[in-house]
Amino acid sequence: MIKELFTETTRTMKSSMIRELVASTRNIKGLISFAGGFPAPQTFPVETLSKLYAETIANESSFVLQYGASEGDPMLKEELLKWEGYDDITPDQLLITAGATNAIYYMSLALVEPGDVIICEAPSFLGSLVAFEALGADIQCVPLDQEGLDVVALQNKVEELQKAGKKIKYIYTIPDFHNPTGVTMSLKRRKELIEFALAARIPILEDNPYSRLRFRGEAVPTLFRIAHDEYANTDIVTEVVSFSKILGPGLRLAFVKGNKDLIERMCSWQQKVNIAPDNVSQRVTAHFLNRGYMDDHLKMCNDHYRPYLDKMLEATSKYLPPYIQYTKPEGGLFTWLWLPQTMSGDALFEQAKEYKVSFIPGSKFYPTNQEKFNSLRLNFSFSTFEQIEQGMKSLGTIMEEFKA
Amino acid sequence: MIKELFTETTRTMKSSMIRELVASTRNIKGLISFAGGFPAPQTFPVETLSKLYAETIANESSFVLQYGASEGDPMLKEELLKWEGYDDITPDQLLITAGATNAIYYMSLALVEPGDVIICEAPSFLGSLVAFEALGADIQCVPLDQEGLDVVALQNKVEELQKAGKKIKYIYTIPDFHNPTGVTMSLKRRKELIEFALAARIPILEDNPYSRLRFRGEAVPTLFRIAHDEYANTDIVTEVVSFSKILGPGLRLAFVKGNKDLIERMCSWQQKVNIAPDNVSQRVTAHFLNRGYMDDHLKMCNDHYRPYLDKMLEATSKYLPPYIQYTKPEGGLFTWLWLPQTMSGDALFEQAKEYKVSFIPGSKFYPTNQEKFNSLRLNFSFSTFEQIEQGMKSLGTIMEEFKA
Repeated sequence: MIKELFTETTRTMKSSMIRELVASTRNIKGLISFAGGFPAPQTFPVETLSKLYAETIANESSFVLQYGASEGDPMLKEELLKWEGYDDITPDQLLITAGATNAIYYMSLALVEPGDVIICEAPSFLGSLVAFEALGADIQCVPLDQEGLDVVALQNKVEELQKAGKKIKYIYTIPDFHNPTGVTMSLKRRKELIEFALAARIPILEDNPYSRLRFRGEAVPTLFRIAHDEYANTDIVTEVVSFSKILGPGLRLAFVKGNKDLIERMCSWQQKVNIAPDNVSQRVTAHFLNRGYMDDHLKMCNDHYRPYLDKMLEATSKYLPPYIQYTKPEGGLFTWLWLPQTMSGDALFEQAKEYKVSFIPGSKFYPTNQEKFNSLRLNFSFSTFEQIEQGMKSLGTIMEEFKA
Repeated sequence: MIKELFTETTRTMKSSMIRELVASTRNIKGLISFAGGFPAPQTFPVETLSKLYAETIANESSFVLQYGASEGDPMLKEELLKWEGYDDITPDQLLITAGATNAIYYMSLALVEPGDVIICEAPSFLGSLVAFEALGADIQCVPLDQEGLDVVALQNKVEELQKAGKKIKYIYTIPDFHNPTGVTMSLKRRKELIEFALAARIPILEDNPYSRLRFRGEAVPTLFRIAHDEYANTDIVTEVVSFSKILGPGLRLAFVKGNKDLIERMCSWQQKVNIAPDNVSQRVTAHFLNRGYMDDHLKMCNDHYRPYLDKMLEATSKYLPPYIQYTKPEGGLFTWLWLPQTMSGDALFEQAKEYKVSFIPGSKFYPTNQEKFNSLRLNFSFSTFEQIEQGMKSLGTIMEEFKA
């Protein structure tokens, strides 16, 4: 009976296809999986967190076990502003959320009516795309190249949409170690993007789960940082930073900085959706920062991941056919393969099951009905060196068979 | 600039008025507050939780710090079904959420299009009302008496709404130690409600944060339990149980049971809104139940609260004028005063500030434009005996002055 009462959206919305893909390989014994986006458990600061949780509850129970403010723990907010080095940003420009997905959801709730446009990179993060679709957004895609989002294509797209009378609500981008492609936006491109956004008066949502996972090379400042430092603007970019990849996704913590009115409205949504993030994990994270654990911890994470990325790139070069193009990121959790136009990542996925290898076909990172098929995403953070070697060798064999 | 881009709902939605009320008394030194709904910090199982958090992270880090399933921790779900004694209910009829507000939000997202009707008790829980309003629900009220929701009034209301062509999506009720009135629905009334809902094919959302906080008297089975045991039906009632009042609101944990299809769609929303609840607090709560701490803990909570409720009722009888009617609950966190028609809880609130006493005016627990003013809510869980004595004495004086 209750099914008849579902809203149209609830009836038709998609779940993350990745879950179904992963489920379809769950019973394959000895599977080598490059599919997920899970951080390596070896990077979790287990001892420190175990101690901090015990201490925090013992010493601050009447605060951390009690209702917290929808705005987030004031101590965590203070520590975050110190950590990022923004001494002119006030706590009311910052909101703590139950993970980055949560922040992206609130921003979209605040801005998007059904039919309004969100502009995304194509491909983009599937979790955001399914949320945008569920909110009725008209998702419009702009390609990205080796320097990141193509700003010329963006300008053309915006012009076209405005001519068609569309309401563009924001531009969604993942500038650092982009999921799924691993691409990092160049400094030049970042400035072009900000200048265009300022001129066109279109807000930018900067999704930043990976910038601290840089294994080599020089960091590029975030869009928020550039807008703040060089354009004296803290409104045009809303930056979401997740703790999932640098502390542990189980904690469900992220923070978002931006325009004060927007943050206040997102907070008002948070009050209605979950009241506040977990108070214990917020305070524990505040202590983690306050005691100066983060720098060493990030160094450890990056030292851990570096050889796995190197192994993945080495095995890609060694085993995959020369007509396969791939990105060479300096951090993050993913590499990306461009296949020849005639080769489908989805077809490869099916064939790879027989070789006990798994990945995510590139088509899963496009909005519904805008899919491209000649690509796939590889995760290198959740496999051993031997698995990467063996898995990529098998993938090479499968590709040769496929081509033949 | 970004304000111009807000959705209509985002621009106009209310925050919880209770926050503003509480803010307006924040600077009153020596304030005696009966306003909040906070559980007493003395009831938090600090030592046990401190130990369980440390152990859980140390022993299960690769699980609890990692991404968890949107459905919730399988161990917690198993423990919850054992705790409640439902051996025929399967884990896919159960969802873990980031607090009860979160579950209520997902259920509403799944069912309510703008303009659809949710039927509520009047008065009702403000947190739910503001969420329903933000989702565009048409909130229709039915009064409650000493036996709880008035089912005859409900039948008339439903008939009237159906004649008007309205889509009724569900009936929202808080049967045990109702917030704000403290009323517990009688067994007879519960059966009448279920029978009506089954006949009218209208789902019930049973909000149950307080049923375990019973200080005396005999428990009445939940609506879900009655539907399950006596009508062999696990679809008509969706029951949300919160851990906020019995373990600690800082943990942001609740669980919801009901129709499998509904639970699946609510889970699909959870995936988009926050991916999953905090994985650490879920597993810690699972261990708390598994090790059998809950029974003794609840006994301790109830032993703690009982004398505060008694003190509040005694002081009410002793100090308030005889024309004030009040509820005499056997549990929960609140009592409720019915004032004479000519007396406004809002006006009393302003006057009470001068006496350094605070409470929530009854009008705050009605949907916008459906307010009644001759009532107020008193919380007894967050004050000392002396504060209750002194605060109620002052309230009596204020009422006499007001009347005069």
